[in-house]
Amino acid sequence: MKMSELSRASGVPVATIKFYLRERLLPAGRATAATQAQYDDEHVARLRLIRALVDVGGLPLSAVRDVLTVVDAGAAALPAAVGTAHDALPPRVAPGAEPPRRALAVLEQLRWNVDPGSSSVRQLEAALAAVEAVGLPPTTERLDAYARAALEVAEVDVKDVPRATPADAVQYIVIGTVLYEPVLLALRRLAQQHVFTSAPADDEGPRP
Amino acid sequence: MKMSELSRASGVPVATIKFYLRERLLPAGRATAATQAQYDDEHVARLRLIRALVDVGGLPLSAVRDVLTVVDAGAAALPAAVGTAHDALPPRVAPGAEPPRRALAVLEQLRWNVDPGSSSVRQLEAALAAVEAVGLPPTTERLDAYARAALEVAEVDVKDVPRATPADAVQYIVIGTVLYEPVLLALRRLAQQHVFTSAPADDEGPRP
Repeated sequence: MKMSELSRASGVPVATIKFYLRERLLPAGRATAATQAQYDDEHVARLRLIRALVDVGGLPLSAVRDVLTVVDAGAAALPAAVGTAHDALPPRVAPGAEPPRRALAVLEQLRWNVDPGSSSVRQLEAALAAVEAVGLPPTTERLDAYARAALEVAEVDVKDVPRATPADAVQYIVIGTVLYEPVLLALRRLAQQHVFTSAPADDEGPRP
Repeated sequence: MKMSELSRASGVPVATIKFYLRERLLPAGRATAATQAQYDDEHVARLRLIRALVDVGGLPLSAVRDVLTVVDAGAAALPAAVGTAHDALPPRVAPGAEPPRRALAVLEQLRWNVDPGSSSVRQLEAALAAVEAVGLPPTTERLDAYARAALEVAEVDVKDVPRATPADAVQYIVIGTVLYEPVLLALRRLAQQHVFTSAPADDEGPRP
């Protein structure tokens, strides 16, 4: 298809497509003349992925580039790919001077099998340090509920991962991590509304 | 305490404190001389809250201002306050031209008691539209797992809310929503690592 058709098919304006081509986020089309090129369904898919990462993931272009690099590279082994994919994603948490003792204590308690050097451990440490700093450290009950919920979600996240090729899996993890985070957060806020509204009275109807 | 002591107690540099004072994010101290003022523990608490919202919440200053406005205003009724607090928080999702049909269908299925006009509904709609656009719409199983997890987390979130004054509750909800979101997301990523790593072999030790 031509550039104009690619724009229609993907919903991305021509000027933006040209920008992505210049930035090499989108591979060049097949040249058919000095100023013309043909694009295919992979270009449409790639454009949809970029827009999803930008619009919903809220990723800056540099992070989009990192994610696309991981997606394109695939990865040797699936478990390693999960860490690699997560590391490419925001939030960026620089390694602190001190070891992430809060996060490691929680993970030991949970007996979770994770790479203690991964960015997600630093992310958890920063998050726990922040709630502690404002005087709202989690109770054991709260931490247990969060961990249980996270595990429940992760089980179904991982279950759906296509294992045909590592590239597919990485792409799925990256997209699934970034794009399903807003789903989980929106549901949490709505569940808070629901619990608050339903708390004292209203006990009719089954709660899921 | 003096400005320099306030800086030490809060860990926020003097220049930043002065900026917050000019921007009226931090209330003025009690003037003791033409160029001197005294600050107290409330200033320390407010500075910690601002830094937490900026550093962990990743909120721009305009959103910090909105959150502080909600915190300071309190709210007439608690359930209404939850929606108000959520509305002040990112992400900003503008009302679409079309009704949020995906989100409303999910909420009807779940029989959750929420305000259909709230920003969280639009947030869910945008998130669902995005995963659909990249060809990864949730299976019923996935949506159920997410909703169950969200409800589990919300139950313990709401249980801890101090009900002494609406202002306390709103402050708690705002901080709890923004600052506990990173905790949940970090745990989800770590749980994915755990499930991926443990999936085929390793079945020793209890999983929480």
